Amino acid sequence: MPCPIAAQTHLDPQPFEPEMGGRLEALEIAYESWGTLAPARDNAVLVCPAFSAHAHMQSSAADPSPGWWEGMVGPGRALDSDRFFVLCPSLLGGSFGTTGPTSTDPATGKRYAEHFPVITVRDIVDVHLRLLDHLGIECLHAAVGGSLGAMETLELGVRHSSRVARVFSISGTDFTRPYTAAIRHLGRQAIVLDPAFQGGAYDPQHGPAGGLRLAREIGTLYYRSPGEFNERFTHRPVAPPTTHGITFEVQSYLDYQGQKAVGMFDANSYLALSLAMDLHDLWRGYPSPDAILSSGIDTAFRMVAVREDRLISVEEQEHLHRLLSLAELDVELQVISSPVGHDAFLAKSERRRMTELIQGFIEH
Amino acid sequence: MPCPIAAQTHLDPQPFEPEMGGRLEALEIAYESWGTLAPARDNAVLVCPAFSAHAHMQSSAADPSPGWWEGMVGPGRALDSDRFFVLCPSLLGGSFGTTGPTSTDPATGKRYAEHFPVITVRDIVDVHLRLLDHLGIECLHAAVGGSLGAMETLELGVRHSSRVARVFSISGTDFTRPYTAAIRHLGRQAIVLDPAFQGGAYDPQHGPAGGLRLAREIGTLYYRSPGEFNERFTHRPVAPPTTHGITFEVQSYLDYQGQKAVGMFDANSYLALSLAMDLHDLWRGYPSPDAILSSGIDTAFRMVAVREDRLISVEEQEHLHRLLSLAELDVELQVISSPVGHDAFLAKSERRRMTELIQGFIEH
Repeated sequence: MPCPIAAQTHLDPQPFEPEMGGRLEALEIAYESWGTLAPARDNAVLVCPAFSAHAHMQSSAADPSPGWWEGMVGPGRALDSDRFFVLCPSLLGGSFGTTGPTSTDPATGKRYAEHFPVITVRDIVDVHLRLLDHLGIECLHAAVGGSLGAMETLELGVRHSSRVARVFSISGTDFTRPYTAAIRHLGRQAIVLDPAFQGGAYDPQHGPAGGLRLAREIGTLYYRSPGEFNERFTHRPVAPPTTHGITFEVQSYLDYQGQKAVGMFDANSYLALSLAMDLHDLWRGYPSPDAILSSGIDTAFRMVAVREDRLISVEEQEHLHRLLSLAELDVELQVISSPVGHDAFLAKSERRRMTELIQGFIEH
Repeated sequence: MPCPIAAQTHLDPQPFEPEMGGRLEALEIAYESWGTLAPARDNAVLVCPAFSAHAHMQSSAADPSPGWWEGMVGPGRALDSDRFFVLCPSLLGGSFGTTGPTSTDPATGKRYAEHFPVITVRDIVDVHLRLLDHLGIECLHAAVGGSLGAMETLELGVRHSSRVARVFSISGTDFTRPYTAAIRHLGRQAIVLDPAFQGGAYDPQHGPAGGLRLAREIGTLYYRSPGEFNERFTHRPVAPPTTHGITFEVQSYLDYQGQKAVGMFDANSYLALSLAMDLHDLWRGYPSPDAILSSGIDTAFRMVAVREDRLISVEEQEHLHRLLSLAELDVELQVISSPVGHDAFLAKSERRRMTELIQGFIEH
């Protein structure tokens, strides 16, 4: 899993101490950018990647491979590169150029692998703030993200309000609910139970492919929706029935999704980011939500929830919206309907709608 | 996995040819019963077990271990043994006394194991009809079941209407939707990927425990509901966070549920019954639902759906209700709300309500 080709990397020599303990002697922060930073450095938009995403959100001349949010950045697009300096950094703990379990630990000269510390969304935020410091960006015009990316935008808006004027959160939440943690637990179990995992000390060429595949398949059921699957696939067997193999179309689809994950994820990174999402809690360390919400936050928040989302429910997003509203923050929640469910923000079929929603907010 | 102690076993020497092919040279059908069959043989109630259930639905003097539907059968109870002859047979393909992968194949003298044929809910029905034939029961007073048991009651009512006067289906469906099949696919994958599974040819003492555990954990998320988990468990870590082990309360709960399954299920049986549910399709072989629904069915149907059910949605049960209504059958659908979700019919907290619903129907 190399750093995306076109990404730049900021080498930050300062040690980093994650929230839950441990220490990284230095940081690498990979990022890509589009557009030009204005002389006043006030036109930066931070795109916060989701779990499976990274710096390469969009193809470019330097790296023509499709990005994970292809079509969303460029002249006149949702993130207008004629107007904004759009910045997308890979995630701490991931395996796409920013320091993570596949990086070399300067202390040992070996990969961190199973020794990589537990990280949280707050750590991800802190690493990205270091990048902003390096680039001289005091305050973002906006931070935009879906899912894990949305958790990051919310942490930024609530706990680092002076660093971001606008937060656009899609399928985000204030803290991870036990049911959602249970889902991710299953994915981590699938990886940990694979004998090839070897407690995280696997040979990178022979990692826990079966476990990763199953983890991704488990996730896929929650990233999508029953309505989508039931429309898209026939319920009739497409092969002679078998308990071990493929009988139904939906099984081929899931196996395909799982197989893609094997080339995409490092297992230790999968675990690190999965747990980071479970540990997400905007209110951790405060006696009450209001203790931080009444601290003079002037960031504007726009939240988008998807009715069909099986991972982060509309109800919990309404709960967060209510908390922010009661604290008299500038917040709006828009509930949309999409057969895709949680992954709506990533779906090509929803690009136009997402573009309108984002433009309507950040170009204001 | 021995046959429950108190079960009787009917040895049926006739060969059995499953719907999807293959052949069993003979059948064993384990069952327990309560009450007395009336001279007219018209007071029998068949309880159709769910996926993890078996003949032992209720403790007795002969077998005091708690049954899977403890408290539901006995004098004055939901299934009144003073009035009805209540019959509960284990499932074909299971590992509780009725012929399944753990049974000995008379042709080879060895366990069927991975050579057990693919079975369907129709096969399960046909085996139970053989037991009714043996007992001289021409027409059941009622058939009652939840989940897989409900699929069986519906097959009985629609395709063997002359054999059953009343069908009581809880969380049943006319055919398995692709999203639900996708869920079960994950469980089967968890088992198949466990190296101890060995393509089904595992040593019974050293079966795929890890895979079974994970399969059960995956299932548990769908048998219960987000509301229940989010009420019941704290979202805060209960231990120092770790990517490999237990950080949250809900993880301990799931691991406990999974561990229980290891002693409860044979892996090949798990696969056989899981696939049987995915293959469930009341309309298979008919040009349209109406082709069978207009064939003079006079069974009365009562369906109970649970609003919070994540496995079999209310919508699909409404769909079936509509089909039966349009065919002018005697059918009612009652939608209840229970934080438990799909497993409501099994939950102690719902016993009283289930009792009222069942009595209100079958004692009429």
